Amino acid sequence: MDQLAKFREITKKIKAYSYVMGIVGWDSATEAPRKSFARRAEMMGILSGELFRLQTGKETLDVVNALFDAKETLDPLTKREIEKVKKELDKIVKIPEEEYIEYQKLMQLSESVWEEAKEKDDYASFKDVLAKIISFQKKFVHYYGLDKDPYDILLDEFEEGMSMKEYDAFFDTLKKDLVPFVKQVLAVKKEIPPFMSRHFDKKKQEVFCDKLMDVLSFDRSRGLMKKSVHPFTWNTSPEDVRFTTRYLEDYVFSSIFAAIHELGHATYEQQISTDFDDTMLSGGTSMGIHESQSRFYENVIGRSKAFWETHYPTLQEIFKEELGDTSLETFHKAANYVEASLIRVEADELTYPLHIMLRYDIERMLFHDEISVDDLPKVWNAKIEEYLGITPKNDAEGVLQDVHWSGGMFGYFPTYALGSAYAAQFYHAMKKDLDVDQLVRENKISEINAWLKEKIHKYGGTKSPKELLLEVTGEPFDAKYYVEYLKNKYSEIYL
Amino acid sequence: MDQLAKFREITKKIKAYSYVMGIVGWDSATEAPRKSFARRAEMMGILSGELFRLQTGKETLDVVNALFDAKETLDPLTKREIEKVKKELDKIVKIPEEEYIEYQKLMQLSESVWEEAKEKDDYASFKDVLAKIISFQKKFVHYYGLDKDPYDILLDEFEEGMSMKEYDAFFDTLKKDLVPFVKQVLAVKKEIPPFMSRHFDKKKQEVFCDKLMDVLSFDRSRGLMKKSVHPFTWNTSPEDVRFTTRYLEDYVFSSIFAAIHELGHATYEQQISTDFDDTMLSGGTSMGIHESQSRFYENVIGRSKAFWETHYPTLQEIFKEELGDTSLETFHKAANYVEASLIRVEADELTYPLHIMLRYDIERMLFHDEISVDDLPKVWNAKIEEYLGITPKNDAEGVLQDVHWSGGMFGYFPTYALGSAYAAQFYHAMKKDLDVDQLVRENKISEINAWLKEKIHKYGGTKSPKELLLEVTGEPFDAKYYVEYLKNKYSEIYL
Repeated sequence: MDQLAKFREITKKIKAYSYVMGIVGWDSATEAPRKSFARRAEMMGILSGELFRLQTGKETLDVVNALFDAKETLDPLTKREIEKVKKELDKIVKIPEEEYIEYQKLMQLSESVWEEAKEKDDYASFKDVLAKIISFQKKFVHYYGLDKDPYDILLDEFEEGMSMKEYDAFFDTLKKDLVPFVKQVLAVKKEIPPFMSRHFDKKKQEVFCDKLMDVLSFDRSRGLMKKSVHPFTWNTSPEDVRFTTRYLEDYVFSSIFAAIHELGHATYEQQISTDFDDTMLSGGTSMGIHESQSRFYENVIGRSKAFWETHYPTLQEIFKEELGDTSLETFHKAANYVEASLIRVEADELTYPLHIMLRYDIERMLFHDEISVDDLPKVWNAKIEEYLGITPKNDAEGVLQDVHWSGGMFGYFPTYALGSAYAAQFYHAMKKDLDVDQLVRENKISEINAWLKEKIHKYGGTKSPKELLLEVTGEPFDAKYYVEYLKNKYSEIYL
Repeated sequence: MDQLAKFREITKKIKAYSYVMGIVGWDSATEAPRKSFARRAEMMGILSGELFRLQTGKETLDVVNALFDAKETLDPLTKREIEKVKKELDKIVKIPEEEYIEYQKLMQLSESVWEEAKEKDDYASFKDVLAKIISFQKKFVHYYGLDKDPYDILLDEFEEGMSMKEYDAFFDTLKKDLVPFVKQVLAVKKEIPPFMSRHFDKKKQEVFCDKLMDVLSFDRSRGLMKKSVHPFTWNTSPEDVRFTTRYLEDYVFSSIFAAIHELGHATYEQQISTDFDDTMLSGGTSMGIHESQSRFYENVIGRSKAFWETHYPTLQEIFKEELGDTSLETFHKAANYVEASLIRVEADELTYPLHIMLRYDIERMLFHDEISVDDLPKVWNAKIEEYLGITPKNDAEGVLQDVHWSGGMFGYFPTYALGSAYAAQFYHAMKKDLDVDQLVRENKISEINAWLKEKIHKYGGTKSPKELLLEVTGEPFDAKYYVEYLKNKYSEIYL
């Protein structure tokens, strides 16, 4: 089929552009010198333009449309691929070019405006940019002409097949079944062990994080670990998967759990079949499924008693002075310390979904025109008071704390909570096949990796999140596993 | 002028492609995981194709030809730029496309064939590939139709304006005036001090090399140092100049002098005016001038007594045990140890040009059909015996030692010796303005940098090597400064 060959050729070119631009992005985040960024932005602007023309040019549109019209003649995977590409393209081409360019320009500076606003705790200086971003997003969603609620369109962009209907059900369950439990745990008086205020040398933390790669069976011939300000995972193909962690000398958990979290993302990517490299179905299937893997490794495995039974002696050996007086029990409890806190990225596993619910509520109100950017700080503070009983001292630790909105990413946050809930449901299924705790204790995480590869990872983007859930666990998404998992774990620790 | 605007636009696009591919190259050489290279080659192949089409497509040819025809109406810099681009283009377009592609394919594998041949000391397994490369090069040079000696064409490609006539004169001077002196120094009995066989911890070497960046006033906000197997310098613009060194625990000089050498290249690039960023006159002007800067910093400054008077205490402080019993004099002499050796990259400053003369002789014979690849090992061994009085045990330390020929780089080697000689001539001129030794002793190398910036660096590729020599030193290239410099320095140390 001639059109398909043409589509493959275009796809491969798109891949090549994305590949090199991806490496430049990795370089920017991990080592590029400070003064190189102006030139870099200019050069990347040119390449982005080339890539955009390639992705949305007439030749591409014609091929994709022709294949879409003949989709019933395609094999199921190619059909899914074409549908996915067509869905994206149909949206982009409906945006008037001038507006698209104007929006891209806004995106070039919005993050730095946010950054400065956060630094200076000056919401007013960010407000107008935020208003513009929201206004663009609303217009774009309108142009799509999809006859769907605007916020539903955004939610689906970040998690295929998700809408307010599903998220409402999910969060309602949490409100009903989890929130009272969270309040109960929060009310328990807790002690902060002395080691938490000690100094942990970066170089020594690096040694332990390096060992973690082997503990989690990360394939070093197809990836590497580095450090960066914000930990992240980056990949071009299963043969090149890299991640970062960050080292805080006054908080040893930061590097360890960031490393394990990113190792979760990285393991997912390393275990995807290379068969999909040249297709638009390469990479993890969705934000939510990706997050389910990172949170599974970080929270379910990494913060488990079994994990530290095996690896705490190694950490103690590295930090003799700092941890010599701390028992395994104390250390494990500290790794699962629960408190009402203001900053999402530092929140513990149990209160984390409440931070997400707050953002979900606010995003929905914004896109339903129920509030404006003027109301945001007030609404934010009222919401966090409602969910967690605390109030930010200022907007920097309130409404300004996250980067996402400055990048126009509305609809993204809910996938974080969803990912945690997916993880619990997968974990429930996994336990039917594997003695997870025992494998972790015996340092056989490779067997857990193998299960995840076979059930989830190897498929890359060929299965939708909903298909995966159903096939792996035998039932559709159900928040009860998440509630159960959290209740069991934290009852044992705190009640 | 419309054509010029078009040319600028094309140039900027070419720059953008080169930029991202350059970052990928840097990544490959410094950290990319082992198994990422197959995919990488495929992706880079696509981008290279795009870049090639951009550089040699009809639109580009038309614009360049139009501007070339009107070159007398252009400002002098643009005229030089167009002449340079036209000269390159005129060559490339004369090569039949199939042959060009075939050659590129050969280039994809020739280096690995060489690598394996060297590893296994098996010249026979490389011979046919080498013969093919030479045959291609001969054909290409023939296609150019330039009515010049084939080897002259190659020499000019690596050093603008150079031909056998000039190189013969240069090497004849060395044979007459330097080689007898070299033999005299080689005949002096020398001792290898005990520290040379000691173990020097890599991490500690890193600490010293890091300090070297400040000693040489390297701007860390516009560059960085990393490590790699083969040290090199890499840059996209003066705002992003990176270099590597390598750490050998049984040879402390390796990291130090590789770092200073690369810092020479890097300082050159950092000090070029950013005005030329969007032109084809960005970057250092030639291989020879570049090498003159790296060798000036490495040999003239880095191996001087003045340098170590100031910095040896720091090195001793870092390596208390390893260097505690070694005097400054002993250390300085060891840094300038002269011996007849087989491997070019490990050769000392004094015998180095003899290694180059050998390669020059051989390349000329190859391109004049006086010898074939079958004769190479024999000819090589005879030549090194002639120049240095030693014989390789095998081809790995003989004809197979260098990577260059496997990459089709014939005509490159002579620029290494030329660069050293340029350096001596520049040094002679510099001493009229500056008390170089005193500045080095006072740790004021920034003043030397400033002189080089003003006289050489800032011009980038806007002046040819010959123009630079003449303007900076007031006379054309003259090998006598090189001979004098070497004789003075090594007489003082050894005679």
